[in-house]
Amino acid sequence: MSTALHTDRYELTMLDAALRDGTAQRRCVFELFGRRLPGGRRFGVVAGTGRLLTLLRDFRFGDDELRFLRDERVVDAATLAFLEGYRFTGSITGYREGELYFPGSPLLTVEGTFAEAVILETLALSVLNHDSAVATAAARMSVAAGDRPLAEMGSRRAGEESAVAAARATYIAGFGATSNLEAGRRWGIPTMGTAAHAFTLLHDSEEDAFRAQIASLGVGTTLLIDTYDIRAGVETAVRVAGTELGGVRIDSGDLPIVAGEVRALLDELGATSTRITVTSDLDEHAIAALAASPVDAYGVGTSVVTGSGTPTAGMVYKLVARQAADESWVAVAKTSTDKASKGGRKAAFRTLERGVATSELITISDGFEAVETQAQHPDARALQVALVTDGEIDAACEGPDGVVAARRHHAMVREELPVRALALSRSDPAIPTVYTDAAQPLSDS
Amino acid sequence: MSTALHTDRYELTMLDAALRDGTAQRRCVFELFGRRLPGGRRFGVVAGTGRLLTLLRDFRFGDDELRFLRDERVVDAATLAFLEGYRFTGSITGYREGELYFPGSPLLTVEGTFAEAVILETLALSVLNHDSAVATAAARMSVAAGDRPLAEMGSRRAGEESAVAAARATYIAGFGATSNLEAGRRWGIPTMGTAAHAFTLLHDSEEDAFRAQIASLGVGTTLLIDTYDIRAGVETAVRVAGTELGGVRIDSGDLPIVAGEVRALLDELGATSTRITVTSDLDEHAIAALAASPVDAYGVGTSVVTGSGTPTAGMVYKLVARQAADESWVAVAKTSTDKASKGGRKAAFRTLERGVATSELITISDGFEAVETQAQHPDARALQVALVTDGEIDAACEGPDGVVAARRHHAMVREELPVRALALSRSDPAIPTVYTDAAQPLSDS
Repeated sequence: MSTALHTDRYELTMLDAALRDGTAQRRCVFELFGRRLPGGRRFGVVAGTGRLLTLLRDFRFGDDELRFLRDERVVDAATLAFLEGYRFTGSITGYREGELYFPGSPLLTVEGTFAEAVILETLALSVLNHDSAVATAAARMSVAAGDRPLAEMGSRRAGEESAVAAARATYIAGFGATSNLEAGRRWGIPTMGTAAHAFTLLHDSEEDAFRAQIASLGVGTTLLIDTYDIRAGVETAVRVAGTELGGVRIDSGDLPIVAGEVRALLDELGATSTRITVTSDLDEHAIAALAASPVDAYGVGTSVVTGSGTPTAGMVYKLVARQAADESWVAVAKTSTDKASKGGRKAAFRTLERGVATSELITISDGFEAVETQAQHPDARALQVALVTDGEIDAACEGPDGVVAARRHHAMVREELPVRALALSRSDPAIPTVYTDAAQPLSDS
Repeated sequence: MSTALHTDRYELTMLDAALRDGTAQRRCVFELFGRRLPGGRRFGVVAGTGRLLTLLRDFRFGDDELRFLRDERVVDAATLAFLEGYRFTGSITGYREGELYFPGSPLLTVEGTFAEAVILETLALSVLNHDSAVATAAARMSVAAGDRPLAEMGSRRAGEESAVAAARATYIAGFGATSNLEAGRRWGIPTMGTAAHAFTLLHDSEEDAFRAQIASLGVGTTLLIDTYDIRAGVETAVRVAGTELGGVRIDSGDLPIVAGEVRALLDELGATSTRITVTSDLDEHAIAALAASPVDAYGVGTSVVTGSGTPTAGMVYKLVARQAADESWVAVAKTSTDKASKGGRKAAFRTLERGVATSELITISDGFEAVETQAQHPDARALQVALVTDGEIDAACEGPDGVVAARRHHAMVREELPVRALALSRSDPAIPTVYTDAAQPLSDS
């Protein structure tokens, strides 16, 4: 299915006007970045890159798309002819999926003609804004949970396709599994789940329900024990399953108190290895508050799929450099009022001291020739990789393999964060973004 | 494409266990409702129903879906055989799309065997939770905007498919157009859009950009005048387009002040009929604050597609009644702690006095025979309609026609709201939800 109409109409009307006056063929550099970390986050997590690359493969204007644009008179015949042959032949560099980011980090740098680059704005932003917002929230929860496993179970609180993307983003950011089967099929993410209250209510008694579940899933399963009375539920669970019962799930109540009572009762009944999973309206703060409670695993729903108060990462896609009529490069930026941005092509590095991140170092090339991407700063890590080269998409970023690589990369780079980055309260970014002119040696910055 | 794996794993493991012990064939009534209106909303707007019905048509387990479930050992062979032949043959009644709702409103009532009804939980909730959250926010903005037109332009701040659904939901709730072309194609929603800052920056001067846009779109177009200096931008726009210029767009700055200055300048230049569109970080509160400013139209992005602080409607899908082994009906409900819900099949009415809504009247049938859906209360409106009857989906709710009907219905029922419902501050629901026992005459309640 074509993804080409996941596009704001103005991109095509701009294209139409630019084809008419010849500026559409000017080579351009667009940059996707966030001006700030919304929600007082101390770091952001890039997610969606691999998904975007696959959607880019399907960004073609077929008969259906062209007919719609013609019937609605969105563009003229010359533009329709251009779109009919459209495929992105430019290049994209960007942060690895799973990488951390900070204000101004050039997460994607898209180079091509104005015509081919301008029309990717909406799709690129939709994917990265959503997935990065979820991944950033998930990473904070993962930090709060420490070694205890986290499962994502929020599909019902997000649009049906965003739910699949959210499961993917949480897995990249440290969650261990999802309830969403489509995410399992499409992205290879481990799926989990046992039973809802409806299953207990379907049966004539809680005991019947537990027996049925154990007959199907074995005593290693997790029984939901709060449909009626929690204490009676635990007693019934252990009576039916024996002390080898895998786990119990609590989905309501004041969790620190209830978890303590359930643990004591399980131990009293001899079910000392039965695990406790909690799943009621958890966010990173609730998870942190349970650190001292006898909880073995967390299931997180609404809060993670909605970015825990920050449902979009607020990234923008801006023209930062273009060729003039004589093909020389010009840095460009909006200058009026509150939304000014920095023109020029950027190269980005994370500076480290003894393995701990100290800054997001961004060099701006004033000539817009290919910039020197070798870090001149001692102990810095270059953050950008080639994602698309002259139209060729790096397939290693896509599919389940891309997800595994992103998850691994995230786990690695999160280790570089300074301790202050791990606190949950609202604050400034954990490291500063430092701009430097590529014309000058970086050591002078 | 099959939608059947937009499902939480536990629905299939419950099905597996229930097929094994025979309870899967018990007839059940599931209800989709919200316990409260999150975000201190005074009313909610139902959206997504027509979309859900189309997704339900594709809720089939094909070879790909069955292979995944087999390979992952999600369910056993008997369950795979059941799923292979699955189609929903039950019935669904529910609120019309575009209808208002309140805490406890039975938005969908799904009746069928446990097996066929339980596995629709995630898909139904994903669609209604997302779309209703957006529609509810959009309706508040529409109230705040009064007669001034609103356009949705938030696609870039939502997952790419949720963006299309959001455009649809905002249109149902009173917006007039969207920037999202896919929403135009799929749902017949009017699309709009002119130019971004990138178009101005692409050109050697703002004047060149304006000339190019007018050459393509005519002088009736809307020029974006805040790339450099707003005052100079307005002067250039009128010099290039003449006083017949259709509109100018302002996307930054302190909007009440800037709009006033731009209006004065346009008038001074003779462009007295040129309209002013504002688009910078608007939500219902910012729109209300602009009521006295000379603004002609609003473009809303981030806030509406993220539900203006309430990105999900928090609806749940609960088993409320089922047959016992002897086929008698039993009302069921979770009883423990903080999430208790009301068992029993519901019929819902909006009571009105002189055309103004006074309560959400919900009758609970204690026998669970088909309830009397004729309102016994004088001047009440029955809220539920048949959406699926014995597996037959009402096609009138689907596609662009369904959207038009929902938009019309919403405009009509919004007129019934009491004045206090239209205030934007956080409060209780505008009308109370009143439960009554169907066995008793409603006039006794």
